[in-house]
Amino acid sequence: MRVEHQTSSRERARTAAAPIPPPSADTVRIIPLGGVEEIGRNMTAIEFGNDIFVLDCGFQFREEETPGVDYILPNTGYLEERRDKIRGLLISHGHLDHIGGIPYVLDRIGNPTIYTRRLTGKMIQKRQEEFAQTTPANIREVEKDEVIKLGAATIRFFGVTHTVPDSMGIIIETPWGDVVFTGDIKLNHDNGQPSDEEVREFGVFKNRKVLCLLMDSTNVWQPGFSIPERNVYETLENIVKNSHGRLIIAMFASHLERLIRVVHFAEKYGKKIVIDGRSMRTNIEIARELGLIKYKDDTVVAVENLAQYPPERMVILATGAQGDEFASLARIGNKSHKYIRLQPTDTIVLSSSVIPGNERAVQKLKDNLSRQGAHIITYHASDVHASGHGNREEAVWIHKQVKPKFFVPLHGYHYMLRVHADLAEELGVPAANTVVPDNGSVIEITKGEKIVKTNHKAPSELRVVEGHTVSELSDVLMRDRKALGQEGFCVVVATVDRRSGRLHKSPDIISRGFVYLRDNKELMDQTRLIIRKSVEQSMRNPRSADLDAAREDLADSVARFLLQRTMKRPIVIPVIVSI
Amino acid sequence: MRVEHQTSSRERARTAAAPIPPPSADTVRIIPLGGVEEIGRNMTAIEFGNDIFVLDCGFQFREEETPGVDYILPNTGYLEERRDKIRGLLISHGHLDHIGGIPYVLDRIGNPTIYTRRLTGKMIQKRQEEFAQTTPANIREVEKDEVIKLGAATIRFFGVTHTVPDSMGIIIETPWGDVVFTGDIKLNHDNGQPSDEEVREFGVFKNRKVLCLLMDSTNVWQPGFSIPERNVYETLENIVKNSHGRLIIAMFASHLERLIRVVHFAEKYGKKIVIDGRSMRTNIEIARELGLIKYKDDTVVAVENLAQYPPERMVILATGAQGDEFASLARIGNKSHKYIRLQPTDTIVLSSSVIPGNERAVQKLKDNLSRQGAHIITYHASDVHASGHGNREEAVWIHKQVKPKFFVPLHGYHYMLRVHADLAEELGVPAANTVVPDNGSVIEITKGEKIVKTNHKAPSELRVVEGHTVSELSDVLMRDRKALGQEGFCVVVATVDRRSGRLHKSPDIISRGFVYLRDNKELMDQTRLIIRKSVEQSMRNPRSADLDAAREDLADSVARFLLQRTMKRPIVIPVIVSI
Repeated sequence: MRVEHQTSSRERARTAAAPIPPPSADTVRIIPLGGVEEIGRNMTAIEFGNDIFVLDCGFQFREEETPGVDYILPNTGYLEERRDKIRGLLISHGHLDHIGGIPYVLDRIGNPTIYTRRLTGKMIQKRQEEFAQTTPANIREVEKDEVIKLGAATIRFFGVTHTVPDSMGIIIETPWGDVVFTGDIKLNHDNGQPSDEEVREFGVFKNRKVLCLLMDSTNVWQPGFSIPERNVYETLENIVKNSHGRLIIAMFASHLERLIRVVHFAEKYGKKIVIDGRSMRTNIEIARELGLIKYKDDTVVAVENLAQYPPERMVILATGAQGDEFASLARIGNKSHKYIRLQPTDTIVLSSSVIPGNERAVQKLKDNLSRQGAHIITYHASDVHASGHGNREEAVWIHKQVKPKFFVPLHGYHYMLRVHADLAEELGVPAANTVVPDNGSVIEITKGEKIVKTNHKAPSELRVVEGHTVSELSDVLMRDRKALGQEGFCVVVATVDRRSGRLHKSPDIISRGFVYLRDNKELMDQTRLIIRKSVEQSMRNPRSADLDAAREDLADSVARFLLQRTMKRPIVIPVIVSI
Repeated sequence: MRVEHQTSSRERARTAAAPIPPPSADTVRIIPLGGVEEIGRNMTAIEFGNDIFVLDCGFQFREEETPGVDYILPNTGYLEERRDKIRGLLISHGHLDHIGGIPYVLDRIGNPTIYTRRLTGKMIQKRQEEFAQTTPANIREVEKDEVIKLGAATIRFFGVTHTVPDSMGIIIETPWGDVVFTGDIKLNHDNGQPSDEEVREFGVFKNRKVLCLLMDSTNVWQPGFSIPERNVYETLENIVKNSHGRLIIAMFASHLERLIRVVHFAEKYGKKIVIDGRSMRTNIEIARELGLIKYKDDTVVAVENLAQYPPERMVILATGAQGDEFASLARIGNKSHKYIRLQPTDTIVLSSSVIPGNERAVQKLKDNLSRQGAHIITYHASDVHASGHGNREEAVWIHKQVKPKFFVPLHGYHYMLRVHADLAEELGVPAANTVVPDNGSVIEITKGEKIVKTNHKAPSELRVVEGHTVSELSDVLMRDRKALGQEGFCVVVATVDRRSGRLHKSPDIISRGFVYLRDNKELMDQTRLIIRKSVEQSMRNPRSADLDAAREDLADSVARFLLQRTMKRPIVIPVIVSI
């Protein structure tokens, strides 16, 4: 796969128009480049002195407003103009909303060295191999208790709880105190009491002076504590232990901690495992390579050998709990899976919540699965899933450990950030010490005393990946796609005699996605009349006729007529051939 | 508004192909015509002897799979062929998923008399007035303790708890016992204990012999009890009582019970009300007309007079809690509301959950509102909303009152019906006495002893409303719209000399929703070469050339080339004009 970058003239003009001066010597600049007006495409730049440190580089999957687009990237325009100052790309953990942008962005920002923990590094490496990049990524492994020097700064790390191993927070020491970035975070609490490990990791803040906290806000609007992952493990262990038929557990391949546990439970209770899903297999293999998971070779069996084992000894790990059309579970559901046909004694565990936008697909999946008589366990009735992001009370604990002077909420839609900012105020950070950012906000902390959102704005237009191409999002394109997806289009072809100005033959009408014209002979005939009338009117003085104006009039007349008759607004493409 | 019905030849052929004989004399036939493979468009036919009784007539809003469609209707083909046997259309309550189909369907099924309670009748009437129907609806009001004779049957009603007043269940007496239909239902319980009124209403089943229960399954998959509406009232009362700034409460206009309560609370605490939303105003007016709500004339003030009152005395009832683009709350959010500009002292209550599919719109709404500093209260952190459908334990209580011999779960996706069927089995209905239906399933209970899903199937193709037209859903149309919404289209126009077989001039390329061709001059030029090559190849023997084949080849060549270059699959429309 080769990545092309398109720079439109519009983009060039804009970038050139707003030069942002470097921060003054007494200033720490913080610029969220993605992830603060959405969930996903997380990326933040920290700049002071002559150095820029980049935190994470994720992408986001397409949304309703960006039909046909593959991914949305952070806008790295600010960094591209300051490549020489970038001292490193620091990655908190290996999820796509934190590493997904790397293959598309790395070259553009000057291929800085990537600093991250072992598993994350491997995951990044694996993805890079799928892209035919010219320059290979330069990855430097760090450990959570390591201290490194980058540019003029000292950088430290601390372990955090999320749903993938090797998740970490990042501490950047500045002359005015630490800038602390949590990455994605929850607590592995027991009735509200964080684990010993978490207490130990956050112990690092006992004697530190924290200038500013940058923190995940995804679930802070949810009251109380999140379900701790340990509860999920207990539930899943019981299900594995007690299953009397085949057990199919569907979850994200990225929930690697949980995958590791399930493999362990299966082995503990003498069961065999089928791993059905490429991303899942890849992740489990990486984890095994790194010693994060250990299992006997014969514990994992190939899906084609499934029938050789008694059903009550089989645990099938499957992808597709979000209803993804081509994933393992969807194929099981619609009976197109090559090796797995459901039986009424099968139990299916959907070990995931439903990502907004996927409800209909998941509903269809559940309908398909239950039609075949299988028993389905979801997180509604049983603790088979927990989010990787902490709720309000977990945020409270974290804030109390870090005790920041200033606060900038990250990771979430504006409303989520706002709720998090309100919480910080309740916990004692004065409102004036908090900034709720937008993507591209240039935030400055001066002399360690004052935080402001400056009037500058880093480039923040949406950049999107479509096929092989990275380009700036085109509003026109999106608007056209949305219209086409609802109303369709209609091409009208008129061949006109250039001397007489008369139509040569009956005009052609070709439509797709509009209404079924074949069933609407009367509508077709009337439209032909409209076309003839419009074109012959425009061409009544053939010599002086303006073909462009004639096309425009034709499109208008046809569109108006079709709207009136059908209440639909297809895009009308007028073709007039003058011969 | 005039409604046209289109009958495609396909539809006519299919209907004619599968004649279903009338039920034999000892049989009760039950046919769910909509609402059992989806949430919405509820409609069920009960047939025995020479009579058909139709229960509800809803519609469903469009789904991801039906882009551009306005509404989806139940397929009434079965009823249309048996109009003479229809004794009445019985409506359980006034929500659109139970009455929305009436204006589109009533004529087609022979304009049967509608039997329903007072408020529901008014709501149906109000909607009918928006349609220029030839025949007016014939509505006969019934009360919940009324007993009516229709055809050879006796019909009774009972009051049920839902979120709109005058909700009722329906009892159809057959020679073998009652067919009982609950409509939408939850319990107004107090810690799991149903209200006295509910105990009284269900008392009717003490001495009845229930042949078959047909029941709402929407939330039966949720464990425990739902939040009772009384908790929501308490929460809202407290919020109204204690608000120190303007209070904006957004909810469905159809949650009429709750609207009535909020108006009452406002008056109780000396506040004024603005009703901002047409549907809300209509519903409150109907309720007032019928005496379901009483308030002083000067309690409700016009939105344009809002500024005349102190903020802490204002309660604004607004539509648009689902993020609907043109509703009151969205206009407040994007600052386009004519009279309401948010202030940081305003509180906004979103008294609704988020309907699947609306998450993104609601998120955007919350972002817009919180950007203006208003405080937002949602159901996540506070009991400001409860569903109108009961959870599992409420279903348990209802089943125990009704004690049916046979059971057919209605209202829900297949998975939900399946969960409800499993519950019925746990409660003592043998598995053989339950049928989980599909839309169009012809279910028969014979001699009151045996229930079967027969091999017959009533017409069940999706019928959709688009603009003025009701027609059968076209798979091709939907597929084209989905493709166009992602990939766009491309029209290529080649003018070819009929004698030489050569292109007359450089071909034209017009695209929309594909990629930005203007930014892709190289791609344009290469595509032109491909067009020229393909057409001239097809036309190399101009006399014997097949224009249709030439068009097909042209589309193929261009599509293949564009896919390879862009990874996009636009719909390619080839236009070859031979002159």
